[in-house]
Amino acid sequence: MSKSQKSLIALLGVLLLFFGFVIMRIGVAKPASTVKVAKIPAGEYDPAVWGQLYPLQYESYKKNADMSPSPTGYGGSVKVQKSEMMPELTTNFKGMPFSIDYTEDRGHVFAMEDIRETKRIGPKSPGACITCKTPYVEKFYKESGWGFAKIPFNELATQVPSHGSISCANCHNPENMDLRVINPAFTEAMQQRGIDVSKASREDMRSYVCAQCHSEYYFAPGSMKVVFPWEKGLKPGDMYAYYADKPNGFVQDWQQPDSKAAMLKTQHPDYETFATGTHGKAGVACADCHMPYVRKDGQKYSSHWMTSPLKDLDAACGSCHTQGTAWLADRIKTTQDYTFEVLHTAGQNVARAHEAIKKASEAPNADQAELAKARELVRKAGWYWDFVAAENSMGFHNPDQSLNTAAQANELARQAIESANRAAGINLL
Amino acid sequence: MSKSQKSLIALLGVLLLFFGFVIMRIGVAKPASTVKVAKIPAGEYDPAVWGQLYPLQYESYKKNADMSPSPTGYGGSVKVQKSEMMPELTTNFKGMPFSIDYTEDRGHVFAMEDIRETKRIGPKSPGACITCKTPYVEKFYKESGWGFAKIPFNELATQVPSHGSISCANCHNPENMDLRVINPAFTEAMQQRGIDVSKASREDMRSYVCAQCHSEYYFAPGSMKVVFPWEKGLKPGDMYAYYADKPNGFVQDWQQPDSKAAMLKTQHPDYETFATGTHGKAGVACADCHMPYVRKDGQKYSSHWMTSPLKDLDAACGSCHTQGTAWLADRIKTTQDYTFEVLHTAGQNVARAHEAIKKASEAPNADQAELAKARELVRKAGWYWDFVAAENSMGFHNPDQSLNTAAQANELARQAIESANRAAGINLL
Repeated sequence: MSKSQKSLIALLGVLLLFFGFVIMRIGVAKPASTVKVAKIPAGEYDPAVWGQLYPLQYESYKKNADMSPSPTGYGGSVKVQKSEMMPELTTNFKGMPFSIDYTEDRGHVFAMEDIRETKRIGPKSPGACITCKTPYVEKFYKESGWGFAKIPFNELATQVPSHGSISCANCHNPENMDLRVINPAFTEAMQQRGIDVSKASREDMRSYVCAQCHSEYYFAPGSMKVVFPWEKGLKPGDMYAYYADKPNGFVQDWQQPDSKAAMLKTQHPDYETFATGTHGKAGVACADCHMPYVRKDGQKYSSHWMTSPLKDLDAACGSCHTQGTAWLADRIKTTQDYTFEVLHTAGQNVARAHEAIKKASEAPNADQAELAKARELVRKAGWYWDFVAAENSMGFHNPDQSLNTAAQANELARQAIESANRAAGINLL
Repeated sequence: MSKSQKSLIALLGVLLLFFGFVIMRIGVAKPASTVKVAKIPAGEYDPAVWGQLYPLQYESYKKNADMSPSPTGYGGSVKVQKSEMMPELTTNFKGMPFSIDYTEDRGHVFAMEDIRETKRIGPKSPGACITCKTPYVEKFYKESGWGFAKIPFNELATQVPSHGSISCANCHNPENMDLRVINPAFTEAMQQRGIDVSKASREDMRSYVCAQCHSEYYFAPGSMKVVFPWEKGLKPGDMYAYYADKPNGFVQDWQQPDSKAAMLKTQHPDYETFATGTHGKAGVACADCHMPYVRKDGQKYSSHWMTSPLKDLDAACGSCHTQGTAWLADRIKTTQDYTFEVLHTAGQNVARAHEAIKKASEAPNADQAELAKARELVRKAGWYWDFVAAENSMGFHNPDQSLNTAAQANELARQAIESANRAAGINLL
């Protein structure tokens, strides 16, 4: 065959390929769409009402009542005290509610029930605590802006009926099912970072709806308004630097009574951790793994069982990672085991640091400047440690950063212990 | 259209697709194979001779003379003292040749030149050191088995001509170009793990040819035979446990003169680190990233410029990871920066531990049992630290494990310092 003959045959092949593809597409029936875009009245917060129009999504949402453990032994939805796995929590949170009651989170459907029952909530707890527990926060904010944050939690909670736990309206516009954010703290923090959430792409919204609550925050003193500390960035060091400036007059979450250090309680920085990790940087959204597309009766829809991807690795990871579930589970477990090992050591040394500073402060002629240094070190160590401990993936959302952060926490705790020894006049080698 | 009509049209489409593909294949000229399988005499170690038959591979092999730095600042082929970046090396290797001269590795073509010139080699250095520097090791082993390992290095090196650095014959059978391993230490270690290297798949061989040298080893006392410490596994803890059993009477690589601790020098555990990481576990071979397939004049061949994938990210990573070179470089740099931060801190604390133990041992009435404990701790800390420091990817080959290992090294060094303090009779808080 000559070269031009060969080219002609190749061209014929390409044409056949094209027409074959077109004809095949015509012959295959398209499945019906699962999104009906039926209007639901604004202010309808009962998921059962939404469920009548979106039965597949609602059926999967109800699975959030599942209380199974995580296959890797970290996280999961069983309501156990976290201190069982990390007894150091008791010392590290001494003097504040998390030392009394700090359980693994159950699913979204239990959010209101669990916050009503936790020993962390008392008569003085502010309404701000309700922000991420119910779609009724939309109503409260519409009525009084951040004013609701100062109303006692117990008073506000009486306005939330039994169906009022986190559900459809937290993330969807009832009129057109568009994704939306109803926690104003998130919208404000993003605005400060130059991001207009109302103009976000659908793919970004598939993370933002989760990020509006799965993020670190603090209550601004006085107003009790929820604030996300993102002005300097999303990394542990960025937020620690932000808090050093005493934003809104905020100095500490509490004082640890042994060390008398002004401590910060990190609150589940899931989004921040994920966003700066490989998956986040690659443009993967939270929903891609936690709400994967599934099929039922030929219909494709996003699972609304927001749970550990470990419970359905094929659906959650399989569309990108084809190595099979056993391989995937092993990789996740490896990352989590490595992270837990470093984290647990760090947590124990943070606890030791609190105790060492207490002893040093009781020493006659304790060096006050050195003691202040030790307290600053244990504050920082506690922040870095809790950044990983309070995060819900045991390192998986960002393995490199989480391992580095836990390692830094350990080193800082060790430095705090040394500093306490020096404060007590002990001459170290 | 009825359902059966639709099916018929779809079938027609599939048939057209199939024939189109077949016809297209016929029309496209196949490129000539780059592997000619021309016989080269056994014992031919001059790459220029091989290069006459395999010009593309040889041209790329010659690029190993490139001495450019790594874009991320770690590794690279510039011959600088590693102690410039990590001054703690000087203390951590005190009393042994690596404290005198320890430069970044240049390419394979310089292996013989660099070992002849390094200050680490002296009149007493054993022939064993030549094992991984030249294909002539095949000849030496054929002539006298492991006997060559005891011959002085300087004597053996005179038998290696100027073209005798690592080249074609280290990895290829000259008769048929099959991949092969010529370092008997690797074959023996794999045999002990139940793996017959002679029966390995081509994909496995694409890692084994590298692993035969890019691995941790020690010289068996007396015979000076090279041994890979893999009997209990490839992880840092597995090998540390192996050494604890004093294999072949091997107790230590050297005694650090300050702490008097019996130390181990980890030697570039690149393969071990990679094999237990995500890429290794996913079945990726060393050559997939370090010798990616490239094209020239329509011919596809494996690049024989064995260098950092960072120097050609498109070829090295692009066939699996499509996010673009800037994204890839950023991910690698992030992992390396996180790893270096933990590693550098760990290394400095290992150095401090040696000094603290020295001071403790000079204290009157030093507690000898506690001193022994401190020495065991700094030996282990040094091993874990060096496992990451001596490895050539600054954590990238296995980020989770490397960060965990460096973090453990730091904690062990900190424990060694505390132990030294206790040995000196200092009552710590």
